[in-house]
Amino acid sequence: MSTPTPRAVPEELREEVDRLRARVCGLHAELPRWNLVAWTSGNVSARVPGADLMVIKPSGVPYGDLSPQDMVVCDLYGQVVEGHRTPSSDTGSHAYVYRARPDIGGVAHTHSPYATAWAARGEAIPCVLTAMADEFGGDIPVGPFALIGGDDIGRGVVAALEGLRSPAVLMRGHGVFTVGAGAEAAVKAAVMCEDVARTVHIARQGGPLERLPQEHIDALHDRYQNAYGQ
Amino acid sequence: MSTPTPRAVPEELREEVDRLRARVCGLHAELPRWNLVAWTSGNVSARVPGADLMVIKPSGVPYGDLSPQDMVVCDLYGQVVEGHRTPSSDTGSHAYVYRARPDIGGVAHTHSPYATAWAARGEAIPCVLTAMADEFGGDIPVGPFALIGGDDIGRGVVAALEGLRSPAVLMRGHGVFTVGAGAEAAVKAAVMCEDVARTVHIARQGGPLERLPQEHIDALHDRYQNAYGQ
Amino acid sequence: MSTPTPRAVPEELREEVDRLRARVCGLHAELPRWNLVAWTSGNVSARVPGADLMVIKPSGVPYGDLSPQDMVVCDLYGQVVEGHRTPSSDTGSHAYVYRARPDIGGVAHTHSPYATAWAARGEAIPCVLTAMADEFGGDIPVGPFALIGGDDIGRGVVAALEGLRSPAVLMRGHGVFTVGAGAEAAVKAAVMCEDVARTVHIARQGGPLERLPQEHIDALHDRYQNAYGQ
Amino acid sequence: MSTPTPRAVPEELREEVDRLRARVCGLHAELPRWNLVAWTSGNVSARVPGADLMVIKPSGVPYGDLSPQDMVVCDLYGQVVEGHRTPSSDTGSHAYVYRARPDIGGVAHTHSPYATAWAARGEAIPCVLTAMADEFGGDIPVGPFALIGGDDIGRGVVAALEGLRSPAVLMRGHGVFTVGAGAEAAVKAAVMCEDVARTVHIARQGGPLERLPQEHIDALHDRYQNAYGQ
Repeated sequence: MSTPTPRAVPEELREEVDRLRARVCGLHAELPRWNLVAWTSGNVSARVPGADLMVIKPSGVPYGDLSPQDMVVCDLYGQVVEGHRTPSSDTGSHAYVYRARPDIGGVAHTHSPYATAWAARGEAIPCVLTAMADEFGGDIPVGPFALIGGDDIGRGVVAALEGLRSPAVLMRGHGVFTVGAGAEAAVKAAVMCEDVARTVHIARQGGPLERLPQEHIDALHDRYQNAYGQ
Repeated sequence: MSTPTPRAVPEELREEVDRLRARVCGLHAELPRWNLVAWTSGNVSARVPGADLMVIKPSGVPYGDLSPQDMVVCDLYGQVVEGHRTPSSDTGSHAYVYRARPDIGGVAHTHSPYATAWAARGEAIPCVLTAMADEFGGDIPVGPFALIGGDDIGRGVVAALEGLRSPAVLMRGHGVFTVGAGAEAAVKAAVMCEDVARTVHIARQGGPLERLPQEHIDALHDRYQNAYGQ
Repeated sequence: MSTPTPRAVPEELREEVDRLRARVCGLHAELPRWNLVAWTSGNVSARVPGADLMVIKPSGVPYGDLSPQDMVVCDLYGQVVEGHRTPSSDTGSHAYVYRARPDIGGVAHTHSPYATAWAARGEAIPCVLTAMADEFGGDIPVGPFALIGGDDIGRGVVAALEGLRSPAVLMRGHGVFTVGAGAEAAVKAAVMCEDVARTVHIARQGGPLERLPQEHIDALHDRYQNAYGQ
Repeated sequence: MSTPTPRAVPEELREEVDRLRARVCGLHAELPRWNLVAWTSGNVSARVPGADLMVIKPSGVPYGDLSPQDMVVCDLYGQVVEGHRTPSSDTGSHAYVYRARPDIGGVAHTHSPYATAWAARGEAIPCVLTAMADEFGGDIPVGPFALIGGDDIGRGVVAALEGLRSPAVLMRGHGVFTVGAGAEAAVKAAVMCEDVARTVHIARQGGPLERLPQEHIDALHDRYQNAYGQ
């Protein structure tokens, strides 16, 4: 973070920021669509490439009421640079992740019910499905309990993901944070995290499960990350 | 309740009452949207500020058929003051809450499935999630079993919420009542109550849970009530 | 059944039959809306008042493709009287119910998941919720296992409901049949049956439940049947 | 497979292929509608009658973005014959099924949650419901764990379905493959498989279940396959 924090959106990034406002706004519609949120309880952000800036949801605004103009542009310490709304109360946590991990371009946060149930127990989701190997490359880990308001949540997210292939972490007693190269990848990881949290929960109600062998996990993850999609 | 009950909507409140008819009508769409109700089994009301009046759903009318004109204006003893419909059969319970608690401006009632499952057992939902600390400031309490038709349900709701920060109560063998400064806050509490009832139920199926420490609950609740939103 | 079976819709019932075609068709949209059916697996019928006729869904047609013209008019032995479609394969069961119970004007049949789970075990749903007392007036009973094709299912439905206030019966190893004064009441009973089947299932996962006292069940049922609605 | 693989869609099949592009595209909307998929994780294909060709979903494209032009025409070894998109990463498995089973005209693949939960444990779903006898004619079997990329999954699907009436197989640690005379039948089987996987799971949480007697299963399956529908 050696460059000074911008006080306004630089002219040359105007187009990119407006594109990201629309993109981040649109991705919020995926949260209720996939049953990841109740009322206003989840949020998505995107890093502005080439600047120490991020675009994030305003705090406490219902998903159906969001427009691109409501998105808030903040610096990577969570200070508002542009926007007429108060940013998400999770802004500081998103900002910490962007500061610590330059490779990350998108962050999503939800309290999706099955994933949060694992988080409530502080239990990692074991990698027992090929879809988990594909997307997460192993277990979905647990991060520490941390209070909102300072750097503790962001620090916990970064520490828990350190050295793992998983783009998702279950924050103990709280909910899910996911990351990706961009905001869409982070939202996809949030959708897949809830999906496997649910399936593995249901599966285990019926009997014990076996983790996939590590070499299969490695092969599946490698193929999915490199050969899947367009 | 020292002022006499109005026999009609006072002229100076006409605009406010019409605004509340539209608002209360619109909030009923949130009940099926968040899967809180089956058929016609939930209702919302709002106090008319500055008068001993409330606006409430008509009885037994499907959510998709409701228009603002169908809402019923009652006094705080549940007598109809304006409207061509029979009011909700829960009107007396809403009315009691408004009489006893002048700080409450909105009430919602549902049989949402996970919360009602806790109510069927008469078991409070333990505060094991940060989202519960935020919205409820502790456990969601249980109120007594009470029959519809008199003041018993309303009395039970008020007694169970006495001295607590929770805007929700699980009425034993029945369902959920939530309250708020206005009708939207009460509906939000109903949505959040079902959300945490579900997550904590699922979590406990997988193993024992620990209540959050009281000082964390206090800090989270204080922050959410004072710093969240716009 | 002393009157001879009509060979065509009598002229004086044309308007009523057309109204029922539209009504029964429209009620089928409630089945997917309330998550009671998969693909084409549920059906609704209505008796034509004043004639030994019924209006029922055609067999195997997706809900989104149904129009009033697709509904089939049958006599009360399941023979087609009017319509260009094959009637539901459950027509014989609906017909038996209408023959045996002149007070019944509507029948619905689903494999809704939670109610069918109780049916798979052959276990009645105990009346532990006020909403069950309201709508069902007691436990939801279990009927016998019976094969489709003859009168066995219809006979089992009628026998299981004999002397009870419940408009719903869980047919063992099969699914749910509900009845009512009209088709809408039968569909409402199907929605409420799944709702309480789910809530009571979830409740019992967390601990033992107590049936409501009989005098409370009686009082609740009496009030709901006589004072609820418009 | 004695005929040479086509290098392009033959002129005389142009109309049929265009029809199948629209049909297969449209059937993908059923996957999210019935809650069988998360994000882009399920796919459907159809054999082109009269040619060694199939039409399949492109890889990693969201369901809401699919148009008929996005569907990919492949030969029965998974090589692209027509289309501007990369085909589903499951194309090789679909292709193997078409090569080995000339009677099969449609294949669907999902990770639907309840069915995949049974697959995670490698446990067949016992035939305890009439709806299972109707559609599957017995238990829904388990196929072997197999890695994507070669013929192993397709081979496992074909082997597991050998000699059974079930159009669905639970691939261990992975998900569901279903087959049918056409693509719609395969999608219907996927919907019904998830439905019964869920109901039987819920039923067993409440107590032990009994498989239907074989002669009842036989009678139900025979009737449903021959007398149901239009």
